[in-house]
Amino acid sequence: MLIEIGKYLNKRLQELGIKHVFGVPGDFNLSYLEQIEEEKQLDFVGNCNELNAAYAADGYARINGFSALATTYGVGDLSAINGIAGAYTENVAVVHISGIPPLHAVKNGALLHHTLVDGNYDNIMNCMREFTVAQTRLTPANAAKEIDRVLQQCFIEKRPVHIQLPSDITHVKIQVEDQPLNFVMPKSDPELLENAIEILASAIVHAKSPVLLIDNEAQIFQVTQLVEKLANQYAIPYVCLNTAKNIVDESSQLFAGVYVGAASQQIVRQLVENSDCLIAIGARFTDVGSGYFTHQINPKTFVDIKQYDLNIFGQNFPAIELSEFLTALCHALPTRKVLKPVLEATPFVPQSIQASRKLSHDILWKYIGAFLKENDVVIGEVGTSNSALSGIRLPKTAKYIAQPIWGSIGYTLPALLGAMKAAPKRRHILFIGDGSIQLTMQELSTIIRYDLKPIIFVINNGGYTIERLILGEKAAYNDIQNWKYTEMVHVFNGKNTYETCIVETVLELEQALEKINDHQHLSFIELKLPAMDAPLSLQKFADVVARYDYGDHAYQKLKMPEQYIKCQDAISF
Amino acid sequence: MLIEIGKYLNKRLQELGIKHVFGVPGDFNLSYLEQIEEEKQLDFVGNCNELNAAYAADGYARINGFSALATTYGVGDLSAINGIAGAYTENVAVVHISGIPPLHAVKNGALLHHTLVDGNYDNIMNCMREFTVAQTRLTPANAAKEIDRVLQQCFIEKRPVHIQLPSDITHVKIQVEDQPLNFVMPKSDPELLENAIEILASAIVHAKSPVLLIDNEAQIFQVTQLVEKLANQYAIPYVCLNTAKNIVDESSQLFAGVYVGAASQQIVRQLVENSDCLIAIGARFTDVGSGYFTHQINPKTFVDIKQYDLNIFGQNFPAIELSEFLTALCHALPTRKVLKPVLEATPFVPQSIQASRKLSHDILWKYIGAFLKENDVVIGEVGTSNSALSGIRLPKTAKYIAQPIWGSIGYTLPALLGAMKAAPKRRHILFIGDGSIQLTMQELSTIIRYDLKPIIFVINNGGYTIERLILGEKAAYNDIQNWKYTEMVHVFNGKNTYETCIVETVLELEQALEKINDHQHLSFIELKLPAMDAPLSLQKFADVVARYDYGDHAYQKLKMPEQYIKCQDAISF
Repeated sequence: MLIEIGKYLNKRLQELGIKHVFGVPGDFNLSYLEQIEEEKQLDFVGNCNELNAAYAADGYARINGFSALATTYGVGDLSAINGIAGAYTENVAVVHISGIPPLHAVKNGALLHHTLVDGNYDNIMNCMREFTVAQTRLTPANAAKEIDRVLQQCFIEKRPVHIQLPSDITHVKIQVEDQPLNFVMPKSDPELLENAIEILASAIVHAKSPVLLIDNEAQIFQVTQLVEKLANQYAIPYVCLNTAKNIVDESSQLFAGVYVGAASQQIVRQLVENSDCLIAIGARFTDVGSGYFTHQINPKTFVDIKQYDLNIFGQNFPAIELSEFLTALCHALPTRKVLKPVLEATPFVPQSIQASRKLSHDILWKYIGAFLKENDVVIGEVGTSNSALSGIRLPKTAKYIAQPIWGSIGYTLPALLGAMKAAPKRRHILFIGDGSIQLTMQELSTIIRYDLKPIIFVINNGGYTIERLILGEKAAYNDIQNWKYTEMVHVFNGKNTYETCIVETVLELEQALEKINDHQHLSFIELKLPAMDAPLSLQKFADVVARYDYGDHAYQKLKMPEQYIKCQDAISF
Repeated sequence: MLIEIGKYLNKRLQELGIKHVFGVPGDFNLSYLEQIEEEKQLDFVGNCNELNAAYAADGYARINGFSALATTYGVGDLSAINGIAGAYTENVAVVHISGIPPLHAVKNGALLHHTLVDGNYDNIMNCMREFTVAQTRLTPANAAKEIDRVLQQCFIEKRPVHIQLPSDITHVKIQVEDQPLNFVMPKSDPELLENAIEILASAIVHAKSPVLLIDNEAQIFQVTQLVEKLANQYAIPYVCLNTAKNIVDESSQLFAGVYVGAASQQIVRQLVENSDCLIAIGARFTDVGSGYFTHQINPKTFVDIKQYDLNIFGQNFPAIELSEFLTALCHALPTRKVLKPVLEATPFVPQSIQASRKLSHDILWKYIGAFLKENDVVIGEVGTSNSALSGIRLPKTAKYIAQPIWGSIGYTLPALLGAMKAAPKRRHILFIGDGSIQLTMQELSTIIRYDLKPIIFVINNGGYTIERLILGEKAAYNDIQNWKYTEMVHVFNGKNTYETCIVETVLELEQALEKINDHQHLSFIELKLPAMDAPLSLQKFADVVARYDYGDHAYQKLKMPEQYIKCQDAISF
């Protein structure tokens, strides 16, 4: 069939389940935006800036599987690139469509605005190549093939791709095949698969203490149910990395907790490190995920299952598809009964806290834990929020969104917008600090513009608390301007009814949670907390970070000046 | 002498005249920020996000010559990169210092946060290389040499450089030379210089109508006074490109106006295109600077003077330093008297406009022209503001700041902050649209935090007017949320007295200008203008852009659907 290039791209986006395109208009993408507007099943969501748009697209894809982002060449692309790099790091499938100058200008190296006016049209692509798994510059000759190739790669790798769409070819008609693209994961090599299953099934059956160690990749490649099935079938206790919050059932009898190297609870650490068959699903031992590399994993008893990259006790199998492998493994294993739960939950009883007490982190998160419900989407900004929420058992069907590895502050407010566009009927609850919200706060305006009704908690602790814990407790560089946060909703012209309040005591927290519990409106709650108060885990973590980052010498000089001076004195005498 | 690496860097920054470092803290730059805090002559200016910090550094360097920006690895760098690319395009000397992970982690490819956790520590540098003229990753072994090399390059090229400073070596002491770095431009080859002067001086003397065509490079390399001297000495009329607003005296008898190809005034076009010796200083014929490439320059009579790149009537001289060349040219030329002024100014008489009239662009800018004073710093956001201000004769000593080529919307609000930090005693006046301010509006908070007192005009025309003029006049993608702009000052906790007002009529404009004229406080004025009202030059320009960007076929289909359908009908019959 004959179809305009822009429309063909939109058709394929819809086949990926995309219903919204985030972005900002610019002269090089306007003709493509016209084609989005024409498409009834596709909505353009206008963001306040491109970085926010990229974050929103990331949030959308975390619920919807895939998302699309439209920017204009140069200025728009480079504004968004930090969000694209974050999506790459955290395995989020964002299709980035850049409206670039007309093909004739690109070919002739025309000295256009939004370029360095040196005739170079490769620099943006060079940058995007670093953070995407496929890239293309469309032409009428290649569009039919290239759109499919790039989107296929996005589907397989679940990571961002970059499509440059010249402004003068959006409406050019090309001949394409009529049927939908066949988005399927390439199958495993059957022999390798059989061989691998044989080895692993036998190892599991002969092991005394098999354990599953689950990371976020299990969710990305949609095998969490298979992992749970595997665990339940053979009664294998499972542990998550802290980069895989609530992706499997944390209320299960088999759930043992979160593994973060030496910072893990004793029971979790023993379970993982003493297992004679530790089966990891997509595990990445990052600094934040391993207690700064204090994990102790025995390679001889370690099974490392990643998409198309399987290692069993050091033997590599290159061509094994994750879901196929887990399905076959379940088939190959017998059934065992769970004898006793690994952990026991201790429910929170709020009555025991004095109502007039000033709010602090140790109290706050107990209330929040009790406030969260089944099916909530909970979003935690990196820093105090993510740190605290990592320690809370979330309801079974709650979805948790954070950006723990890339860790770009300000991410969560636009990500909230994206998540709500993907699942408008679920209750969304965001926790974000004052330092972080200042980076991206204009996206609250877009949330208001599209009449979304999240619950937003702003933890106002007077600056960058996580940085203060690491270095510069009282340094001016960790200060920020104190805003009247709750009044932003008014400035952004929130016309429908909304709730705002400022919480300083336990009583006020109780009242606020009561008021927003049945949740009809957008709710915006400022929580006042002391500058140096933080979840205990973060406080410990911060000191480890400081030693790692600055080295012992500078660490002592900067964080323990008294001891440092003493030590210097000792040297000089 | 023995000095800590971070302190050595700070010493060199100060030798470049830098007194402020813009940026955002992050764990990888905190130990370096400590060294900025220790330095009495160097202030850290904390921005709300890194893109804004980069824009602020850009604005600072436009007044101060050089500036510094400190970010944290990955997230911070990539957030700032669009601002760095803008500085490259517009020839602004920003020293970008990225606090990167400790050297041992980089060397070992550690899987750290703020990286893609794939062990790759080159991707950020690869991106930065595209938009900077020198880059380095410091080590204790190379720091003494590399800091000097990179800053020297920044000085010579007046463009951004990128310095990666590992977090664990900031406090490492190295041996360096005691004396200041000798920042001087490399001299010309004397023979080539003599030869070139001989040819050009003779050509000018024999020419009937020599003309100077001045672009922004003249300002960047600080030769505007030499250019004026040359013009005055031999009575050569001069013309500026629109990318060189007010860099030479526009009230001079020799100033003829702005050249923008076919969009120029007739007298300017004739002067430039009919000159038998057209001497260009740093001219770049970009789309926005040449009326979309409608300039007609005869290469046989064209002298193209750029820094270390001189072409006289097609003959290239590679090693000629700009200021040396202009100095020598002045020496070589005789003196001539100006016979009559090229242009005559027509002063604006505001009394002739009816006070109850609704505000419109044709009225507004006449008032603004009369409002501006000697020594003002005037900042115009790309779009309606820059377009209108380009057509106004500014007071002789007023400084104009815009980003006409890179054209990243939202640039000017943070640039205002930077400019004010560089010249706090001058009156600063910003003109920015509602669409643009939404991208970077949190930086108003930093302006308030540092108690600066600019005059800010927000042109509220209900969305992206420049885009509407190009395509999608009524399209939803060009809409934005309407904010209560004037209330932002309150939300950002403006504690000192400030003025805000909303202007809808000529009378209200007169009253507002009267009120802020003696300018004691921060003033924030919202100007309500119709969505499709714009300076005439912009309206014409927008249509040219649309044809260029989308091609005639899509242009007709999208912008003139009736004619397009007729034409399609004609084809089908």
